[in-house]
Amino acid sequence: MADRLEDFQKFRADLNEEILGCGHLGMKRFFALDHQAYEPAAFLAAAHQVVGDAVVAVLRCDDCITYHLVRCGEEGWKRDEVIDALNVALIVGGSITIPHVRRAFARMREIKGLKP
Amino acid sequence: MADRLEDFQKFRADLNEEILGCGHLGMKRFFALDHQAYEPAAFLAAAHQVVGDAVVAVLRCDDCITYHLVRCGEEGWKRDEVIDALNVALIVGGSITIPHVRRAFARMREIKGLKP
Amino acid sequence: MADRLEDFQKFRADLNEEILGCGHLGMKRFFALDHQAYEPAAFLAAAHQVVGDAVVAVLRCDDCITYHLVRCGEEGWKRDEVIDALNVALIVGGSITIPHVRRAFARMREIKGLKP
Amino acid sequence: MADRLEDFQKFRADLNEEILGCGHLGMKRFFALDHQAYEPAAFLAAAHQVVGDAVVAVLRCDDCITYHLVRCGEEGWKRDEVIDALNVALIVGGSITIPHVRRAFARMREIKGLKP
Amino acid sequence: MADRLEDFQKFRADLNEEILGCGHLGMKRFFALDHQAYEPAAFLAAAHQVVGDAVVAVLRCDDCITYHLVRCGEEGWKRDEVIDALNVALIVGGSITIPHVRRAFARMREIKGLKP
Amino acid sequence: MADRLEDFQKFRADLNEEILGCGHLGMKRFFALDHQAYEPAAFLAAAHQVVGDAVVAVLRCDDCITYHLVRCGEEGWKRDEVIDALNVALIVGGSITIPHVRRAFARMREIKGLKP
Repeated sequence: MADRLEDFQKFRADLNEEILGCGHLGMKRFFALDHQAYEPAAFLAAAHQVVGDAVVAVLRCDDCITYHLVRCGEEGWKRDEVIDALNVALIVGGSITIPHVRRAFARMREIKGLKP
Repeated sequence: MADRLEDFQKFRADLNEEILGCGHLGMKRFFALDHQAYEPAAFLAAAHQVVGDAVVAVLRCDDCITYHLVRCGEEGWKRDEVIDALNVALIVGGSITIPHVRRAFARMREIKGLKP
Repeated sequence: MADRLEDFQKFRADLNEEILGCGHLGMKRFFALDHQAYEPAAFLAAAHQVVGDAVVAVLRCDDCITYHLVRCGEEGWKRDEVIDALNVALIVGGSITIPHVRRAFARMREIKGLKP
Repeated sequence: MADRLEDFQKFRADLNEEILGCGHLGMKRFFALDHQAYEPAAFLAAAHQVVGDAVVAVLRCDDCITYHLVRCGEEGWKRDEVIDALNVALIVGGSITIPHVRRAFARMREIKGLKP
Repeated sequence: MADRLEDFQKFRADLNEEILGCGHLGMKRFFALDHQAYEPAAFLAAAHQVVGDAVVAVLRCDDCITYHLVRCGEEGWKRDEVIDALNVALIVGGSITIPHVRRAFARMREIKGLKP
Repeated sequence: MADRLEDFQKFRADLNEEILGCGHLGMKRFFALDHQAYEPAAFLAAAHQVVGDAVVAVLRCDDCITYHLVRCGEEGWKRDEVIDALNVALIVGGSITIPHVRRAFARMREIKGLKP
């Protein structure tokens, strides 16, 4: 957990810009599809960030978890609701996800609305 | 896709009974926790089956997908909503999940309310 | 290995048609991107099927392996070259990939140009 | 669970012979290393099959689980001990491993010494 | 490998306390089950830490590996025995686990009884 | 991305030496097999580093990606070709691989011939 949230966000924005600007049309289109996947009209809109959160926690990707936690905070999810989503990931993914749950809790300390 | 839904459900019920009856307390408790994870009060109740569906599709587990599809059907989710959840799994998990998406579509043919 | 190659290909074509025809724009676009990923001008064109083959073997997806083996056969790859690609998957992915390597060898018995 | 244990073992023996006989030295050497990994002098010899069993269950490989269950039976492990190992896999790997645990229990019905 | 063992252990203890104290009963129960899974009466008690070590190495989780290495050291396992367990993980999980094996060797330099 | 390329390479060389010198014959042999897997006569030699790059990106191993990027640079691959290989990994592995693609782009800034 060496990186502060601010550093992570700067690195993320910087590299996303480089990737989207590198001229590879396939990558550009995939980034667009990835963005759209979380914004369906039919799908229960309110749930999408929490869904994403559980999905990426199960896949054990800290950067993705941080991204979704930040978005959950922005959309007004409550700490208890996020913890319920992390619990789904913990049970589905098993104890191998515990280090990621720990880092998710540590990251929530930096996010308004998700602090203990 | 050799097994029909009915066969899968019989095998699943039969073996779950054997596992829960084998006398191993740890396994019994984990099955209970797994059951409870999808029924939190705080968590957006309506979304839980769809969440589960996306999570297990990403993890590429056909039996789990079948189980969640059956539950989605029972709870009145619409075909379009389930397809949106499968799309999240497809984008997050990549083309490696395509065979599972195919089998999910094939399974929906057997589930009332999710048929094409 | 219950399914014959012919059955697999029929199931695959049938369900792909259903998925592409279900009206979900996101899925349709992803299938297009997936198709294009293996056809870059810059990338060493001749290698793409073998690359795909190694990648999906490591990810332990039998249907994907079958698909790429069929394509390797169509493009004139030799049995020895395909086995070299499977060996990369075996070493990178470890003994957990052995059952998939076995099924790949069994599948090659049905593919012209890749038979023993 | 369409395949009986006998069918699986015949397929496995048949294909292993084809792989080892295909003339690829790298694959042949890896198969030898894999075999030796479970027979170290320093490592607690008695535990190796159970270790293997837990490892492959976590990695969700049914064929590997079957192989290790057969070996556990041959070496005189008791049903309760094997269930304890499967429980480690269940807790470490989470509910995503439940279908594999079910199939492991079904397989044990065919293995002398591990039947219910 | 930026973090020293001492820093990791402080972070781990700190966050575990926050998780167990956050009031989520499901998480609390899962942590208890995880703890008990490694202490079965029937299972070969002496082997459990080494089993855990191989399992988590295959799953490529550095924090989990560190935790199990520390426990192996406390229980008197010898360096050679731990290396045998890491070798199982290497063969089962393939060369993709090599960076984790490297970090395991680096971590052993900090653990009494497991130093070179 | 705390570590500079130079630090990573020093750590890697240092620990590889310790592993190869620890006296475990199985590990030594596996390292040799891993090395040989990328040098087959039959396999399209020119493609092997790019293949390895796509494989390990899909498996989400940053250290492995760095290693293969360095080798791609040494062998004269062009930035566009490497980006095509990363795109295969992105499409096959899904958006969960995006953080690794970001770090791959960041690493290319340090590698002669792969800089933007």
